[in-house]
Order: sequence, then structure tokens, then C-alpha cells
Amino acid sequence: MQQPAHGGNLAWAAALAGCPPEAILDFSASISPLGPPNSAIAAIQSQIGNLKHYPDPDYSELRLALSHFHQVPPEWILPGNGSAELLTLAGKELAKLAATTLITPAFGDYYRTLAAYNVKVLEFPLDLRGQGDKEDMGTRGQEGQRRQGGTIEENSPLPLCSSSPLLPKPEKSGLLLNNPHNPTGKLFSREAILPYLEQFALLVVDEAFMDFLHPDEEQSLIPVVQKYANLVVLRSLTKFYSLPGLRLGYAIAHPDRLAIWQLWRDPWPVNTLAAAAAVAALQDREFQEQTWKWLPPARNQLFAGLAAIPGLQPQESAANFLLVESQQSSSQLQQQLLQHHQILIRDCLSFKELGDRFFRVAVRSESDNQRLIQVLRSHCVAEVPSVVASGAAEC
Amino acid sequence: MQQPAHGGNLAWAAALAGCPPEAILDFSASISPLGPPNSAIAAIQSQIGNLKHYPDPDYSELRLALSHFHQVPPEWILPGNGSAELLTLAGKELAKLAATTLITPAFGDYYRTLAAYNVKVLEFPLDLRGQGDKEDMGTRGQEGQRRQGGTIEENSPLPLCSSSPLLPKPEKSGLLLNNPHNPTGKLFSREAILPYLEQFALLVVDEAFMDFLHPDEEQSLIPVVQKYANLVVLRSLTKFYSLPGLRLGYAIAHPDRLAIWQLWRDPWPVNTLAAAAAVAALQDREFQEQTWKWLPPARNQLFAGLAAIPGLQPQESAANFLLVESQQSSSQLQQQLLQHHQILIRDCLSFKELGDRFFRVAVRSESDNQRLIQVLRSHCVAEVPSVVASGAAEC
Repeated sequence: MQQPAHGGNLAWAAALAGCPPEAILDFSASISPLGPPNSAIAAIQSQIGNLKHYPDPDYSELRLALSHFHQVPPEWILPGNGSAELLTLAGKELAKLAATTLITPAFGDYYRTLAAYNVKVLEFPLDLRGQGDKEDMGTRGQEGQRRQGGTIEENSPLPLCSSSPLLPKPEKSGLLLNNPHNPTGKLFSREAILPYLEQFALLVVDEAFMDFLHPDEEQSLIPVVQKYANLVVLRSLTKFYSLPGLRLGYAIAHPDRLAIWQLWRDPWPVNTLAAAAAVAALQDREFQEQTWKWLPPARNQLFAGLAAIPGLQPQESAANFLLVESQQSSSQLQQQLLQHHQILIRDCLSFKELGDRFFRVAVRSESDNQRLIQVLRSHCVAEVPSVVASGAAEC
Repeated sequence: MQQPAHGGNLAWAAALAGCPPEAILDFSASISPLGPPNSAIAAIQSQIGNLKHYPDPDYSELRLALSHFHQVPPEWILPGNGSAELLTLAGKELAKLAATTLITPAFGDYYRTLAAYNVKVLEFPLDLRGQGDKEDMGTRGQEGQRRQGGTIEENSPLPLCSSSPLLPKPEKSGLLLNNPHNPTGKLFSREAILPYLEQFALLVVDEAFMDFLHPDEEQSLIPVVQKYANLVVLRSLTKFYSLPGLRLGYAIAHPDRLAIWQLWRDPWPVNTLAAAAAVAALQDREFQEQTWKWLPPARNQLFAGLAAIPGLQPQESAANFLLVESQQSSSQLQQQLLQHHQILIRDCLSFKELGDRFFRVAVRSESDNQRLIQVLRSHCVAEVPSVVASGAAEC
């Protein structure tokens, strides 16, 4: 089987590990370990009897629930078959412009959807050095203040400016942005992004991981969406609520734009069970609070454990995953962890700027995180003799 | 609420009828009344625990099940989020050609997807007269032999030919065909379609209702798909297995073409529950046999009952629905049936060639069919005095 370009490919991992898919401990897909919420499962069960009917093509109930949740009128909301489907529609929209700027490393599916519509892509690299705690990995950037012990980079400007030679005419081009950024976990503040709404003809912000931030800390552009006709926000419900198998996302943008998007795709993109699960999950404040309570300490635990392993360098993250720089080949490490421990980590070969010296891991429960840390540490210890022999500090 | 362009919009119907959606007796959506099969429901239930994982992006198990079912290699099969999603991809494919010919009246979503990709549409009208039993509705066409008492038009040529002024260069254009045809229920024989594979650059055949025909009678082009690189067959599992809320269809075409289509859309279009339900349903031979046993007599019953009502003219159909010509306004009839009987029929306003003098009804159980016939007959009787007064034979 081919090396997968996305995390969460358990069929591939199970074949390599020689075990059933359900035996894999999956750190590769950035899905919450707390869900799915019981409320969503109960909603799914209650709707199985309704599968013999078509979904409501207006998705009125779902859009109303999203409207209440985000305080945005229902006509500004378009549900989709995962945010991945809406990303494809965004690609068709961006194709109307001369070019689209991508912050790199970028999620592989961005390239796929832009290529599908022959969009000219301008790449603007994030500074990948100096994000972590270890100064020997590079000089820390001067992007702004960092909250001590926290994850939010406040006031950090986006690493591109209108005078860049890469962006000759931003007013005729688009910007496709991921916030928090995947795979680095970097969070851009709302204020850092707002100027780009004045400069670019269209700004598409993929906020697939934004709901992992507490409402006091999140930096979503949804609160300003009604002020900017050139803004599209993409959201996912599958990561926070652990329902990637069900497929549910949505776009928030000007109603005129969404009316056109609706004509670009089939009339019933969201299945009945996904629509019902979403309504229930959005109202499940208890599950949301649990998630916000779980993530920061669990992420700190995982970060600290990884940072203490020689040759591994995690980057600070606002999301539910950590990008880790490794002095060892990550694809080899991935293979070893699969074959010996049935643990799946996400290699970064599909991010061409990262290649084989980075991997990504989801934050899971404290016990799962501890198991990953132990296994990685044991691999380092096992490698020490050869490392000493060769004189290099490898993990 | 706006008049819906598709059948099965129960939210709209319930608002008009002043009742909950589940109280509506729905003849508007052409969905089998026998399902969903228990096997599919059990498969859905068994996979709810797996929703926290992404679907297998290769859909290996599903494609293998479809491969066994159709005797076509798995790489010739592409599952989708309902055949409606695959129709949209077909639209993008057809946009590569100079024009696409549509047999009309055509399913409204064909126009939607062709317009989404700026496809030039050439319309070729079916002869709508003389399809029924009543000679006074028009002269019966000379298209070929009709099986007595049956529904299959054997050897009937397609109502277009390469010398038509509408088709100046078929070798550079596409043909989008529905077989059996919706909304007429007309079936084209395989032999009638094959010549068009030699003439057109691309032939897309939507066989969403083909599985309602017994294997001895069906006219699918799937058996020849490996011989023609310019053939795409679209299939749906939602109508035969009564799972329109779950969204599942597939395309069968050359692997090179499907590999390109895969790049045009997101990596996980089919949700986990739909994939599992499909595998179970395809293996449920008992359910399939039940359906093939149920449909012909139930359709005959409904046809005979409707044909006996003055002013109504059903057309012979190979599918699980009947198109009915009505001397009364169909949208008024629809409204009366909804408000007085909570019965929903499909008006044909979205088919511009048909307009207000046609409606479509699904074949349901014999008791449901009987109820519809009685209600329609009572409306005719109630209308008789005014009809007599005006001197016209209206229903």
C-alpha cells in the first residue's frame, strides 16, 4: 500500500503493524480522544429510522443550531460533507482570481483543491525555526510576545506583507490560511489577520481546529464575517467532537457567495445522521467544557515529555497536536513504532518543507501520551550505543 | 417556503399540510417502500463506534463488495456521497467537450451540474405522447416493439441520431442519459445505446433506477464498461435500499478517469456508516429478490388504478415510479392532496417540458397505492359537477 498523505489511515497502518485496525493507538489523526459525545451518539441513533427520507435540502434545523452557536444569521452558513468538501468549493472560488497565496507548510489537500481548479499558487513559508524551548534548535523569532507557558502568540503578524515580491497584486489574489496552523499548531491573532482582508480580494480561513481553544482565547474571524464580503471561514465539527467518520463541516460567508456554492454541488451533501449529531453536539456545553479543561494540561504533559527526549524538539501549539522536529528519520521512526508498539504517528513527508525530520502527534489522554513518551524514550535509549559510536546525538 | 425542485422535501410538505413530516405519505420521492434492509441497519449500528476514525480513503472493502456485485475490477469503481456527488464530477468532465446532449425532460440536477461548469447543453426531447394505454392521448410512437403487459421497450432506438441538426459534431460532444429515464420511466435497451458510444466523445449514463429491474431484464451498460474508455455509469444505492438520508452512490468508469475525479474532490466523500450499509445491502440477496417480486405487480396495480380515473393518464414505466398526465393542474392537485390527505405527490414544474399537466408518483405498498388511487378518484368525483357544468372532462 502507498504511504498515506493524510493522518488517520488505519487500514494502511494495520497492514504494516500486522494487527487489526482497532488495535492501533492512533496519534496521527488530530481527533479529540474525549468524544464522540454521548449526546451526538444518541442523536445518531434516534435518526436511523429517518434514513429512508432525503435530508432537508435547506438543513434548516442544523443551520439554526449553528446560527445560535456562532451568533451569525442562518443564511450566512452552508453545511458540507466535512470541511474538506467546502475546501474544494473554496478552490473553485479562488480560481476566479489571478493567484492564491498559501502559508507553507500547508495541508496537502490545499494543493489538491487548488490544482483541481488550476489555481496559481504563491507559497509563503512560515519560519519553522525557534518555535520551541530549546535555543540550540535555532534563534527564537521576533514575531511578538508569547504568553508564558501558554500557546497563543499574541500580536504576532502574519509572515507576509503586501510589499513582498511574491505578492505583486494582492488586491487581485486570494489568501488561503489555516488558523490555528496545521501542522505547526501556530495561532495567528485576529488582529494580525484583519489587515489582509483589506488587501486581498478573498480570504479563506480554515479554522478546523479553532474550537479547541477556549472562547476566551479563540481568534476566530466569525465575529467579523458580516463586515467583510471577501471573507470565508471554514469550520469542522469532526475533530473537536471526534466524528471524522460521519463527515460534517460548514462554511460561514456572505449569503450571495454561499448561494453560488450551493449551485456548484449536489443538493444533499450532508447525511441525516451527521446533521442530527451536529445539532446535539453544538448544544453539549458539558462536552465542550470537558475538552477545554482536558487539552491545555494534556498538551503541556506531552510537550514536556517530548522535549525531555534528546533529539526531539516539539513546537508550541494552540491546537490539539504537536509538530516535532526529530534528528532521526521520522518515517523510520513511524515504521518502528507501528511494528513494535502498534502506535501510529504522522510522518510529514506530505509537507515538502518539512520532509523526514518532522513528525506530528495528536494530544491524547494522559495515559496514552505517557505511553507514547515512554516508547519514544526507549527508542532513544536503544539508539544510544550507535549514537555514541557515530558521535551524533540521534534519537 | 419555496416550491421544491426535487421530490422528498418533507419539511416543505409538512409545513403546507400542517402536520409533522413523519405523518406525510410520500409518493414524491422515488424510494422503495420495502427498505431499508435490516442487514444495512445492523451494519450501520455496528459501525457507530468507529465514527471516531476517518473512513478508509481507499474504501477498499466497499469497492471490493461492488466489484463482486458487478463483476468489474475494484479500480473501475469510485464511491461517492450519493450519485448526486458523482453527477457533479461528471459535469466537470463534460465541460472538457464542446457541448453535451441531454434527453429531455431531464432531471433538474443535470442542468445544475452542467451550468456549474458552463457546459453548453443541447436538448433532445423524448416523445411524451402515446406512452400510455389510452389512444386518445396521442398516437403511439413507432419506436419499436413493446413487451405485452410488461415495461421494457426492447430494441427501441434512442430518440436522437447523429444526423440531427442539434448534434453537428457528436464526436466532440458528450451525451448525458438517464436509464431508466426519470421522470418518464422509459427504459432504453443496451443495444439502443451502444451506437452512441461510437459517436460521442463521452457517454454518461445515470442508472440510478436500474437495480429495480430483475437481472434478467436490466439493461445496464456496466457489462460493457471495460470495453469503452468513453463510458461512465453512475449508480445509486439509496433508492433501491431506501437510504437517501445516508448518501451513497458510485461511478463505474475507466480507472484513469476515476483517478482524475478523485483529485477533484475531498479524500473522504463517503461516511463510514454509508460504506458499511452498502457492503451489507449488496450481499442481501433476500432483500433484492423481495424488491423484484414486489415491484411489477404493485406498479401494475397503481398503473391500472390511475388509468381508470378519468382525466389521468399514467405512462408505462420500467422503474419504481409513474409519470401521470393530468387534465387538472398538478400543483393544485398536489396542494389539495397535501392539505386534505397529507399525501405528497411530485409536481413536474421543475421539468419545463412537462409543466403543470404532469405529476409523478412512486410505487409504494399495495395498501398505500390503493389509498392514493381512492383519494385521487374521490377528487375526480368531487370535481364532476363543475366539470359537467363547464363541459370539460377534468379530474
